[in-house]
Amino acid sequence: MSKYSIGLDFGTNSVRAIVVDVSDGREAGSAVWNYAHGSNGIILGKDPTMARQHPADYIEGTRASICEALADARKTVKRFSPAQVIGIGVDTTGSTPFPVDANGMPLALKRQFRNNPDSMAWLWKDHTSVAEAHEITQLARKRRPEYLAKCGGVYSSEWFFSKILHCLRANPKIFKAAHSWVELADWIPALLTDTQSPDKFKIGICAAGHKAMYHQQWGGYPDKRFLGALDPELASLRERINREAVDVSCAVGGLSGDWAKATGLTEGIPVAAGAFDCHMGAIGAGIVPGTLVKIIGTSSCDIMIHPMSRPLDDIPGLCGIVPSSVLPNHYGLEAGQSAVGDIFNWFVNCIRPGGEKGSHEALTAQASKLVPGESGLLALDWNNGNRTVLVDQQLTGMLIGQTLHTTGAEVYRTLIESTAFGALTIINQFETHGLKVKRLINCGGIAQKNPLVMQIYADVTGRQMQISRSAQTCALGAAIAGAVVAGKKAGGYAGFPSAQKAMTGVKPKQYLPNPKAVAVYRKLFALYTQMHDSMGRPDHNGAMYNVMKDLLAIRAQARMC
Amino acid sequence: MSKYSIGLDFGTNSVRAIVVDVSDGREAGSAVWNYAHGSNGIILGKDPTMARQHPADYIEGTRASICEALADARKTVKRFSPAQVIGIGVDTTGSTPFPVDANGMPLALKRQFRNNPDSMAWLWKDHTSVAEAHEITQLARKRRPEYLAKCGGVYSSEWFFSKILHCLRANPKIFKAAHSWVELADWIPALLTDTQSPDKFKIGICAAGHKAMYHQQWGGYPDKRFLGALDPELASLRERINREAVDVSCAVGGLSGDWAKATGLTEGIPVAAGAFDCHMGAIGAGIVPGTLVKIIGTSSCDIMIHPMSRPLDDIPGLCGIVPSSVLPNHYGLEAGQSAVGDIFNWFVNCIRPGGEKGSHEALTAQASKLVPGESGLLALDWNNGNRTVLVDQQLTGMLIGQTLHTTGAEVYRTLIESTAFGALTIINQFETHGLKVKRLINCGGIAQKNPLVMQIYADVTGRQMQISRSAQTCALGAAIAGAVVAGKKAGGYAGFPSAQKAMTGVKPKQYLPNPKAVAVYRKLFALYTQMHDSMGRPDHNGAMYNVMKDLLAIRAQARMC
Repeated sequence: MSKYSIGLDFGTNSVRAIVVDVSDGREAGSAVWNYAHGSNGIILGKDPTMARQHPADYIEGTRASICEALADARKTVKRFSPAQVIGIGVDTTGSTPFPVDANGMPLALKRQFRNNPDSMAWLWKDHTSVAEAHEITQLARKRRPEYLAKCGGVYSSEWFFSKILHCLRANPKIFKAAHSWVELADWIPALLTDTQSPDKFKIGICAAGHKAMYHQQWGGYPDKRFLGALDPELASLRERINREAVDVSCAVGGLSGDWAKATGLTEGIPVAAGAFDCHMGAIGAGIVPGTLVKIIGTSSCDIMIHPMSRPLDDIPGLCGIVPSSVLPNHYGLEAGQSAVGDIFNWFVNCIRPGGEKGSHEALTAQASKLVPGESGLLALDWNNGNRTVLVDQQLTGMLIGQTLHTTGAEVYRTLIESTAFGALTIINQFETHGLKVKRLINCGGIAQKNPLVMQIYADVTGRQMQISRSAQTCALGAAIAGAVVAGKKAGGYAGFPSAQKAMTGVKPKQYLPNPKAVAVYRKLFALYTQMHDSMGRPDHNGAMYNVMKDLLAIRAQARMC
Repeated sequence: MSKYSIGLDFGTNSVRAIVVDVSDGREAGSAVWNYAHGSNGIILGKDPTMARQHPADYIEGTRASICEALADARKTVKRFSPAQVIGIGVDTTGSTPFPVDANGMPLALKRQFRNNPDSMAWLWKDHTSVAEAHEITQLARKRRPEYLAKCGGVYSSEWFFSKILHCLRANPKIFKAAHSWVELADWIPALLTDTQSPDKFKIGICAAGHKAMYHQQWGGYPDKRFLGALDPELASLRERINREAVDVSCAVGGLSGDWAKATGLTEGIPVAAGAFDCHMGAIGAGIVPGTLVKIIGTSSCDIMIHPMSRPLDDIPGLCGIVPSSVLPNHYGLEAGQSAVGDIFNWFVNCIRPGGEKGSHEALTAQASKLVPGESGLLALDWNNGNRTVLVDQQLTGMLIGQTLHTTGAEVYRTLIESTAFGALTIINQFETHGLKVKRLINCGGIAQKNPLVMQIYADVTGRQMQISRSAQTCALGAAIAGAVVAGKKAGGYAGFPSAQKAMTGVKPKQYLPNPKAVAVYRKLFALYTQMHDSMGRPDHNGAMYNVMKDLLAIRAQARMC
């Protein structure tokens, strides 16, 4: 009898559940549940930096997606039974924290707070906390430089303590009403295992280590004195979050009776510690040392791992180097771009180019006919700030080189190229600091569906692009964690190496760099780097006079060919 | 019996004729004839810098527009007769030169050359001659710096000799087949007066002085040695263009019998020397010393005059300081922006934002609701290069500050603002060099039709914006020249001051700067200037790090109000 594992993947707009055959990683069933609140699941405000989610969507999404995925498996697999599911893994966006009461109940579910965005989940891409992130960074630079060394040198407005501190400042009523704050990645496993008190959560090292300055070296979360220097209220909160962080090979508990009843799954099957989507995605893509896994969606996460037995220096600009944050006994290294697909979506949905014919498909088809350099355009991919290597949310987009003939398709291609240049900047940062990138595996919707994007990435980086076999790499990674915490005896695996070997793979179609394009993009990348440094580095005193002229020269050459 | 004058205005896409009552400047009749060739009258090529026109359109356009305007006057004015027309004035785009044979016939009208773009008119915005312009500038810097001092320090690719030299280099067959080259502004009066030999043309000082380095001081066009150093063929051409330049108070001849027959006008009525559209527009707007006339269309021309009796230094970046180029006995000073309306048209027609609802009207309506600074965007208005003050066609557009929420209307408003910042840069250049701008009169379609643009110009410059009463200021200026060359005896005027007083005026509706908006735009203009200098000045070593951040701060403040 086949055994199955469930991967639960909480994304930006929806939650997905997949039921995976543990023998080969193939999906037996899957379901997507779109969040019901807000605009595509996101609660927006007048302030364009705000992005929240309603926790009610997490609960209903968990139930609905599991039930539908099981029903789907019943349709696909003869005699499939939920009893064959041996474990559950969970991944989520992050840092996506929210305030809870002493029983772990989100404040947003309480009548008196239910329409208050500050009581809801502060989605990863909420940037309301820029000032607080800066304050935390400044304090840490002075008093705890070691905290910053593990998260790229700058604490981000996207992260746990920035958001909590902003709530404390901007809406003290909500802060005071909260007993504690939890990460979505930790709250879902707690929900499934009926672990009520947030003080006792076993939390995932991934979220804590990458976004909340959690490290064994200094005893977990930042110490009370440091937090107290930001605000005495934070010092007091620190006492209530004395949690134990574990890696995804650990189960935080067994499925509760209520959830077993609600879903038809077996009570007590282990639920793995939660992790961020991209970290689980790296597992699902088959990450090993030397492989860079890129999860390309609305934003990108770029993950590498490095054996903890071998030395590794801190790397500036990374959003974290955390022991066991991806796989046990390996440093997990996370880099990323604050927006990738979101930039293409912005152009299509907010600018709405091309009259009636401005779909992604139409623009992609037109952009495919262009050759590198012929538009004379160059862009910075910073519409949502820059996560790696500048770690600066107060950066914005830039487009340069427009003439009176520039078309929407040319801009669209340029935006794709800009994200590829951003990706190359990250690769270079890894390699400069000793992590050779021997192989690239791409996952996520864009990698799966847009050959133009992948070909441009191959041409810009000069490297072969492989695509993860699974279209749902993050959910697959979560399911692998489920199979590992279930253990060999139950029909799962003793560890990740054997589980990944059996359950992951890449597609036969690979994208090879075209030497002609590589040569043009090498020139454009030099200009991108010049603009990147001039606009993004405070100490950069760069003349920009050459940029437009060089672009015109590249354009002239491209058009001659 | 009322007397009338005809103004003929050759624009970028069409030719317009107006029949004007000389007593008050009101239009009795008008007609527009759209050029038949190319795309909106412009012959384009694969090279995006090419822009040509077919001379056949000039001939048919002259006939058709005059005849239709007279017919229109007949409908409007009881007992109107073409015999009441006492003079004709002509204005055209420029520099728009083309090759002609020894009888003044355009090569493009000959069967063997008729599909060859190089035989056609090289429209003002043709930028194929960038390399040749650079070569001329370099040579003049070394050997004839006085030439450059009168045209802003840089000889442009838009101008007469750049285009001729490029033709010589790129298509020597056409160059050799040509007996000579003429400016459109000179060729139309010659056509109307049946002056065949281009060697004997009386030419307008406006075109010659501003775009062909013609100056009394050195005996007309650049000397043979200078041109010979560029190419021996140019030295030989110089012998065939030993022409006399006159101002628009001079008639180049009387209307020919053939043209009188074709139009119903009286044979022999005087045709004034031709001038560029914006210079005639300045006359039609009522220019006097201290007034800056802005003709805002696809591009902008900014004109001032200064009495020749008073000293005036050379002003860097102007496209010319030429004695009597606008009005007799006054220096004519021309500045301008390479694209204004063309930038808005580019966004609407090439990017086509807003899905099906991306018209100028819809975008203007949405953009009107925005307050200065709230978009966080800033642009450089260089999609067609920069005419004043940088005199550099190898500059391109730039947009900065995009987020994931930036809308098409925000970009549209930002493009308008960018042209206003460009306009202010020109005003500042005039004032820095001793020409106080006491009054601003705007003409052209955009000034007439778009209150948002005019209000933004008032707010950005902190100055009152007046609008010329006539919607066809350039054609009116030409008609005023027609009334002046006709003379007082024939029912016209003895000179321009009395003619302008009677025939020009401004609209009652004026745009006053809003102090709140002025304060925000002052900050944005500082950032514009920073970007302008960083991207546009070779010696500028400016850090750009502050730009995005300052824009975000301005945005935050704008959204708080």
